[in-house]
Amino acid sequence: RFGYFGKDKLEEMKLLLCTVSGCLTDGQVYVSATGEEMVSINTRDETGIRMLQNENVEDSDSFIKISSLNFELYLPEKVILLSSSASPMPEALLERLANRMGCGWKQDMGFSQVQDLLDSKNLAWKDVAYMGTDEEDVRCLNLAGLSGVPQDAPKVALTATKYVCNSRSGHGAVREFAEHILLLLKKAKSKMEQDRIRRDLF
Amino acid sequence: RFGYFGKDKLEEMKLLLCTVSGCLTDGQVYVSATGEEMVSINTRDETGIRMLQNENVEDSDSFIKISSLNFELYLPEKVILLSSSASPMPEALLERLANRMGCGWKQDMGFSQVQDLLDSKNLAWKDVAYMGTDEEDVRCLNLAGLSGVPQDAPKVALTATKYVCNSRSGHGAVREFAEHILLLLKKAKSKMEQDRIRRDLF
Amino acid sequence: RFGYFGKDKLEEMKLLLCTVSGCLTDGQVYVSATGEEMVSINTRDETGIRMLQNENVEDSDSFIKISSLNFELYLPEKVILLSSSASPMPEALLERLANRMGCGWKQDMGFSQVQDLLDSKNLAWKDVAYMGTDEEDVRCLNLAGLSGVPQDAPKVALTATKYVCNSRSGHGAVREFAEHILLLLKKAKSKMEQDRIRRDLF
Amino acid sequence: RFGYFGKDKLEEMKLLLCTVSGCLTDGQVYVSATGEEMVSINTRDETGIRMLQNENVEDSDSFIKISSLNFELYLPEKVILLSSSASPMPEALLERLANRMGCGWKQDMGFSQVQDLLDSKNLAWKDVAYMGTDEEDVRCLNLAGLSGVPQDAPKVALTATKYVCNSRSGHGAVREFAEHILLLLKKAKSKMEQDRIRRDLF
Repeated sequence: RFGYFGKDKLEEMKLLLCTVSGCLTDGQVYVSATGEEMVSINTRDETGIRMLQNENVEDSDSFIKISSLNFELYLPEKVILLSSSASPMPEALLERLANRMGCGWKQDMGFSQVQDLLDSKNLAWKDVAYMGTDEEDVRCLNLAGLSGVPQDAPKVALTATKYVCNSRSGHGAVREFAEHILLLLKKAKSKMEQDRIRRDLF
Repeated sequence: RFGYFGKDKLEEMKLLLCTVSGCLTDGQVYVSATGEEMVSINTRDETGIRMLQNENVEDSDSFIKISSLNFELYLPEKVILLSSSASPMPEALLERLANRMGCGWKQDMGFSQVQDLLDSKNLAWKDVAYMGTDEEDVRCLNLAGLSGVPQDAPKVALTATKYVCNSRSGHGAVREFAEHILLLLKKAKSKMEQDRIRRDLF
Repeated sequence: RFGYFGKDKLEEMKLLLCTVSGCLTDGQVYVSATGEEMVSINTRDETGIRMLQNENVEDSDSFIKISSLNFELYLPEKVILLSSSASPMPEALLERLANRMGCGWKQDMGFSQVQDLLDSKNLAWKDVAYMGTDEEDVRCLNLAGLSGVPQDAPKVALTATKYVCNSRSGHGAVREFAEHILLLLKKAKSKMEQDRIRRDLF
Repeated sequence: RFGYFGKDKLEEMKLLLCTVSGCLTDGQVYVSATGEEMVSINTRDETGIRMLQNENVEDSDSFIKISSLNFELYLPEKVILLSSSASPMPEALLERLANRMGCGWKQDMGFSQVQDLLDSKNLAWKDVAYMGTDEEDVRCLNLAGLSGVPQDAPKVALTATKYVCNSRSGHGAVREFAEHILLLLKKAKSKMEQDRIRRDLF
């Protein structure tokens, strides 16, 4: 339907999947003998996720335009936090992190679980942005329309990704990737505008 | 009334507004599944805030001189910690941080809330020092008589500020900015002294 | 029995002994007035230990081959976390860390305790990989068939070790060492395969 | 009495005074809304303090020799942790830290309190090693027979100290300073030995 924008993948970015450990956090887990485990996240990254999550909500004009791309229809959740089966995380902690930022979350996600998630949402890989650093994220990084990893990610993830952040995991990488996505979406929208004007002119 | 000191803004620095997340802290928030969230601050920054807060209290001589500038009258609180609406913080945590350092605090402060605060205190922007790193701090950084950001602030804040600290957020930047303010105040005071002497002489 | 592989020590790596403080953690302990102490570990290091611990379990084919080396017989626990008597750690915390990663643990281990442990398991030093940074680890680092220390270890440990990680303590050094061990085991296995083929041919 | 060793100050090092915030810790304090505050210390530093505290206890031979210097008589506590009035710390937390390492502790210590402490113990400044980073530590750093500050100390402390550690505050500086002290003590002892031999010979 939007074939004439086909080269511009990002206008169709409909979902960001972001692993928590090593992307939203720096991978450190704080453990005591009997208490709950703790992780640390950066408020800049939280803001980044909220920016994506609220995209087009405030700006009702662009909201309508993007809605014509069925953006809003597909995505009550535009960001979903993942914990991978390789680095398990207490479900309650994952849920709390997601609630802080108003986004979704899924526990124990390997490649096939991610594939099932996309199928259930009628999403193609090209419509998805993916952020992850584990070995089992590599396939997702390769398939996703846009992929990003923090500067300090393992080599295997750095090789597979399309975008490498200047920021480190747990210290702004998610924010940087979110801003990168928003910039690309903005470019795609402005191109769409231009095309609409051209169509109206001729 | 003090027009002949007009070029020397800092003698009129009457309030430091300092955002917590990204200035007093490095932006990291420690989260567990059900417990309270934690932030970390540096004792050097605490000392910096106490230095400003207690300025002229111990040194009763300079206290009187500055009081003639109505410094004491305007400012039972010389430092107010802010949390911005972009990176919300539990009110109880903000209050506790402020109590530790004996300064004031305000929750959910965007630009218009800061403007209201200054109006309620009869303060002009030129009398205010501002420290913040969020996009919504940019306007305040531009307007404030003196503004500072930590070395590791986002580019948008680095561009808008008047003073860039050598220290990083959460690791001494507030202390450094406090010392910078005190130095400028001291210079202004000594200039004022000189002018008084000159006036007495001629 | 496997004398013809004698030069290739690593095929006989049967146990990793890893001190917690300064290897699995960066040595930092979080202390409050009355609460439990906390340490922080990296999920990458956890994954590394799980990789060693599960080695040959999934891949049943190589499992059998290695079993012929009595690998499985000797080692229900392939990784044992140690706390040294020099930097004591609450037993409950050590146990919790070990349980997270499904490996063993021993409290208050000096050189003679480690020697006793190996004796009780009928293990020679050459079959053991050792990771530690304290002065009292030096003898173990020297004796072990393979030894590793994080990049930021004290000089005394850097001098004694066979392998120096690029990663820092508490931030991936254990994972790196685990991958190094697995690589060497893989090489040894493939050499063993070749030798078997040669034997079958001639 | 030991005048002929007079040039070698360190044989007379009888007490290490070490401020907690900025030396034993990196100055970070972890704060939640209602919970206890937390600090982080490094196990290497703990070991350093224990090394000083136990000096001459295990080695009963050198114990006697040093006892002839009244070392043991003066010093049931060879290390005392200080909190300064400038960066206050909950008493219970300071006590817990000291108990972990088996050393003494004193709360709210400014220069005059330190002077009183030395007087009460009949100690001269030249017999004391001091570690501190605050402005009010400067006088102590100047007076002490030996003084040390972490690499990342404020300029004012770096200028006043006799020894600058390669290690950072909260990450090994205390251990490094302890080893420096022990080395100097060892040198002084061996010189003392030589002198005794010479005396016996002639």
